[in-house]
Amino acid sequence: MGDVTVGVDIGATKIQSAAVRDERVVGSFRLPTPLTGAAGLERAVVEAVREALADADAAPEDLAAAGIGVPGAIDRATGTVWSSPNLPGFQTPTPVPLAPDVSEALGGIPVTLGNDVSVALLGEHRRGAGRPYRNLLGVWVGTGVGGGLVIDGELHEGRGAAGEIGHMMVKPGGRVCSDGKRGHLEAYAGRGRMEARARELTRKGRRTILFKLADKRGKPRVSSSVWLEAMQRGDRLANQLIDDAVWALGIALASIQNLLDLEAIVVGGGLGDRLGGPFIRRIAEEMRPQLFVPERPPALLPTGFTDLSGAVGAAVLAGG
Amino acid sequence: MGDVTVGVDIGATKIQSAAVRDERVVGSFRLPTPLTGAAGLERAVVEAVREALADADAAPEDLAAAGIGVPGAIDRATGTVWSSPNLPGFQTPTPVPLAPDVSEALGGIPVTLGNDVSVALLGEHRRGAGRPYRNLLGVWVGTGVGGGLVIDGELHEGRGAAGEIGHMMVKPGGRVCSDGKRGHLEAYAGRGRMEARARELTRKGRRTILFKLADKRGKPRVSSSVWLEAMQRGDRLANQLIDDAVWALGIALASIQNLLDLEAIVVGGGLGDRLGGPFIRRIAEEMRPQLFVPERPPALLPTGFTDLSGAVGAAVLAGG
Repeated sequence: MGDVTVGVDIGATKIQSAAVRDERVVGSFRLPTPLTGAAGLERAVVEAVREALADADAAPEDLAAAGIGVPGAIDRATGTVWSSPNLPGFQTPTPVPLAPDVSEALGGIPVTLGNDVSVALLGEHRRGAGRPYRNLLGVWVGTGVGGGLVIDGELHEGRGAAGEIGHMMVKPGGRVCSDGKRGHLEAYAGRGRMEARARELTRKGRRTILFKLADKRGKPRVSSSVWLEAMQRGDRLANQLIDDAVWALGIALASIQNLLDLEAIVVGGGLGDRLGGPFIRRIAEEMRPQLFVPERPPALLPTGFTDLSGAVGAAVLAGG
Repeated sequence: MGDVTVGVDIGATKIQSAAVRDERVVGSFRLPTPLTGAAGLERAVVEAVREALADADAAPEDLAAAGIGVPGAIDRATGTVWSSPNLPGFQTPTPVPLAPDVSEALGGIPVTLGNDVSVALLGEHRRGAGRPYRNLLGVWVGTGVGGGLVIDGELHEGRGAAGEIGHMMVKPGGRVCSDGKRGHLEAYAGRGRMEARARELTRKGRRTILFKLADKRGKPRVSSSVWLEAMQRGDRLANQLIDDAVWALGIALASIQNLLDLEAIVVGGGLGDRLGGPFIRRIAEEMRPQLFVPERPPALLPTGFTDLSGAVGAAVLAGG
């Protein structure tokens, strides 16, 4: 029986794995998400597990179990992915038996599936920034804005769709969100919508170095590090859109706090991790005047694992 | 040992009690909240317990225990009320030992305190409309707008201040709320702020029968039944303000649903109970287009006990 558990976090652009032994990260690996369909993705997950093991100087027989965080709808009992809009090969109405397939390729070890956002919060709650708290929100600010909740020490997933904080209203009639509706948090604080807004303002004659910086790095999208560089170089449009994101996060998180009276909020995701402490402190300042109990705000924290939260959480899910 | 438990719900204007035997309401009593301070209020609570017992044809020795729902900050362990802004004699910095005093006056039976809003939700969850559900929000639409949450079958009170849904943002920069801040749900859907808005519009020349109807009934405030009568008589201003309340409740409840993926939402409180089913159906319609999973909305329900929810819940809290 092995003593290493590997967690795998499947993202739309990359697959990240982490090997965990004795509650510590002992190895990791990252590869681009293949765009060739379900079979290719399954092979990449198996590779990510093996390479994290190798990075930990562990042998194949040291592997006890694996966990996988999936951005989509899953059936945990059968280890099946029902649909995952952002993963090629997973949009079909045919469920993909991801856990059984990966288990077979790895010699029959137990493989557990979880939702990517919930799993990332699990990682932060059990091993990362959220350890001291029993009532905790995780906010993942990336292309979209996702969330996860721990209530009384347990993940709260509702009927499976809880945590959609990106689709909470912050301004009725406001900017268009990724789901086509108006005024949601994600319309202001999701990197995808922020980029769309920047393009729209550029067409109206506003100037920005955002797209030039992205081109220079050979990136098709304005990444989190491009946002950071543009801000630091004093780009007015970039700073204005980040101001709007802080404003919207302040409103949504204050409303959540007034509803749930949480102990802590962990802010992660690509943009959250990259902009880090200064960004998180500004969100806390924006929240404070809107809190019903302003003298006892929640602790606002960066993640403990940055882009490893999901992989570590997937390992925790599998018992690591 | 007695077999009747009495619950008492202390409100700013009335005290309501309910006697419970074998999980059924067997008696009740109501009296106005005395405005003479803590001692008078304690006597009134004792009277409410005794009269509910008498209404149930029960003898004093049948009383097993009593529970009390208090609109304020309490210390459950000592049965003490720390502060209750709306109750005369409870605003001082001197804690009032409400449970021990009531227990002594009733021959030493166990007396338990709870927060009024949480206790009302407990009543609905264990005995009323919320029984089938493990994840449930209670929204009390009255002078203000309060809320309570059941998560995984247990009351969620956070650090003691959860459920302040009245202070969730629905329109940044919007109407002034009871706490002086702008754009909160309660600024649109709380009867107190709705009345203030009606007076403001009247001063600006708008016409309404709201205040005439209240005068005719000898009431200093526009009560829930006055709102209902004005609506039914086609008063445009009353209908417009109720439309605004429905709109604001739709936004806030949809945001909460997207966050928590609840099974059901119970809508109560003076205004919620009085306007009833048609009001609740309109809120459900307003929510639907804003839901992230519109094909699986939460059940929106009226309370099972209307203005007895709090008293029944207080009895449940005390073991009844």
